[in-house]
Amino acid sequence: MTGVLGDLALALASGAVEVVDLTHALTPDFPVIVLPPEFGQCAPFRIEEVSRYDARGPAWYWNNISMSEHTGTHFDAPAHWVTGRNQPGGTVDAVGPERLVAPVCVLDMSGPSTEDRDFIMTADHVAAWEAEHGAIPPGAWVLMRTDWAKKAGSPAYVGLEADGAHSPGPDASAIEALLARGIIGFGTETVGTDAGQGAHLSPPYPAHSLLHGAGKLGLQCLAGLDRLPPKGAMLIAPPLKIAGGSGSPLRVLALVPKEGS
Amino acid sequence: MTGVLGDLALALASGAVEVVDLTHALTPDFPVIVLPPEFGQCAPFRIEEVSRYDARGPAWYWNNISMSEHTGTHFDAPAHWVTGRNQPGGTVDAVGPERLVAPVCVLDMSGPSTEDRDFIMTADHVAAWEAEHGAIPPGAWVLMRTDWAKKAGSPAYVGLEADGAHSPGPDASAIEALLARGIIGFGTETVGTDAGQGAHLSPPYPAHSLLHGAGKLGLQCLAGLDRLPPKGAMLIAPPLKIAGGSGSPLRVLALVPKEGS
Ligand SMILES: [Mn+2]
Ligand SMILES: [Mn+2]
Repeated sequence: MTGVLGDLALALASGAVEVVDLTHALTPDFPVIVLPPEFGQCAPFRIEEVSRYDARGPAWYWNNISMSEHTGTHFDAPAHWVTGRNQPGGTVDAVGPERLVAPVCVLDMSGPSTEDRDFIMTADHVAAWEAEHGAIPPGAWVLMRTDWAKKAGSPAYVGLEADGAHSPGPDASAIEALLARGIIGFGTETVGTDAGQGAHLSPPYPAHSLLHGAGKLGLQCLAGLDRLPPKGAMLIAPPLKIAGGSGSPLRVLALVPKEGS
Repeated sequence: MTGVLGDLALALASGAVEVVDLTHALTPDFPVIVLPPEFGQCAPFRIEEVSRYDARGPAWYWNNISMSEHTGTHFDAPAHWVTGRNQPGGTVDAVGPERLVAPVCVLDMSGPSTEDRDFIMTADHVAAWEAEHGAIPPGAWVLMRTDWAKKAGSPAYVGLEADGAHSPGPDASAIEALLARGIIGFGTETVGTDAGQGAHLSPPYPAHSLLHGAGKLGLQCLAGLDRLPPKGAMLIAPPLKIAGGSGSPLRVLALVPKEGS
């Protein structure tokens, strides 16, 4: 192999570039978003054994599976939200493949999110990150690190109370700042791209509303963001090619340069 | 961005490297493998609307979905086959992420497969490819191009007759040759890594039996292999992280150097 892909193959083989998995395992007990009861609900992951080297299939093991398009570590296409319903390439099968492999910037909001589970990231936080790390380039994914992935398995992950869920997220000013940079999409560690109390922001659910209205993509329930540098990694986020799909569980990977190489 | 990932980002932005989608859309009518009726069967893809900007969810559109782990363009982990049941990293959640991004060699068997739908690729075909293109390097995916993807939507795709399915595939000598090269896995355009009549080869289903027994991976129902060079591209094949899963539908991408760049 020659050229940049040959260099990449060598870097992967030598360990100079590492493939990091940013995905939670799909299990029946992984939490899904819970809506008020008058609305359609998000199906949790279910798995049913078809055979396991037995009379149902002597040489093979396999399962049937079911879930929502928005179960587990997953991808939101523009058509997921009403603001993005007429976006070209708005469903997971139609999103251009060139948008599925792209540079990634990681904004570490784990400190303030640990202090306040309802922490809201604003344009000021984006500006402070850029003052330290340089401008967010066009065509990049931006991920909000909160270390929320470490709460998976605990009620604190969704933070469900009588008044709804409690988890950090962005406000409209943050999303507008990212859209002005020309991002590809925005991703979080929480069960949604919006804060648990995002219904009370203006507009309601600003990440969903503004991102998808601008044709941009979302990622949720990410893990392992503490293994990524603030910039310099590549994100690989290829959703299932569900015909007309609004989103998809997926395996999210990052290509990360090893420090010092 | 600096280093090889910075070069990759520039090459993607300039079009010198293209992201090519090798995936069929997941639709309810995409064919699945059909086993004798005494065995457990592979579920086809099903999709059920939960809301679409309506009373069930005024601002959002989403679906619940179900399928087999082996529906559509999909990945086989070693534990799918009894020979691979004790392989370390044998399920989709445990396969090392470094195996999911790797160089790919494409063996064009579209000519003989067009002449004979039961064409069997042998070690001689592998040797002939290497005489022309050089040795298959260790750590590569090998894909068998048959142009079978172009038959999708027609009964000829599965080629089901009273005596079973009819489609091309490899024999044991071909798979043994590829294992001797140290491949990561082997992929096809057909509904299995084995030929439609692979039950009659020795051992039966040589691709499943030998590949998975050696801890290697499989890909099936690939599309667009005619867009790949014989060598020089990188394959991205990240299965869903199903806990204990034997395989998974997935989005398969390739990074392809544009000719002349
Ligand atoms: Mn979602
Ligand atoms: Mn399979």
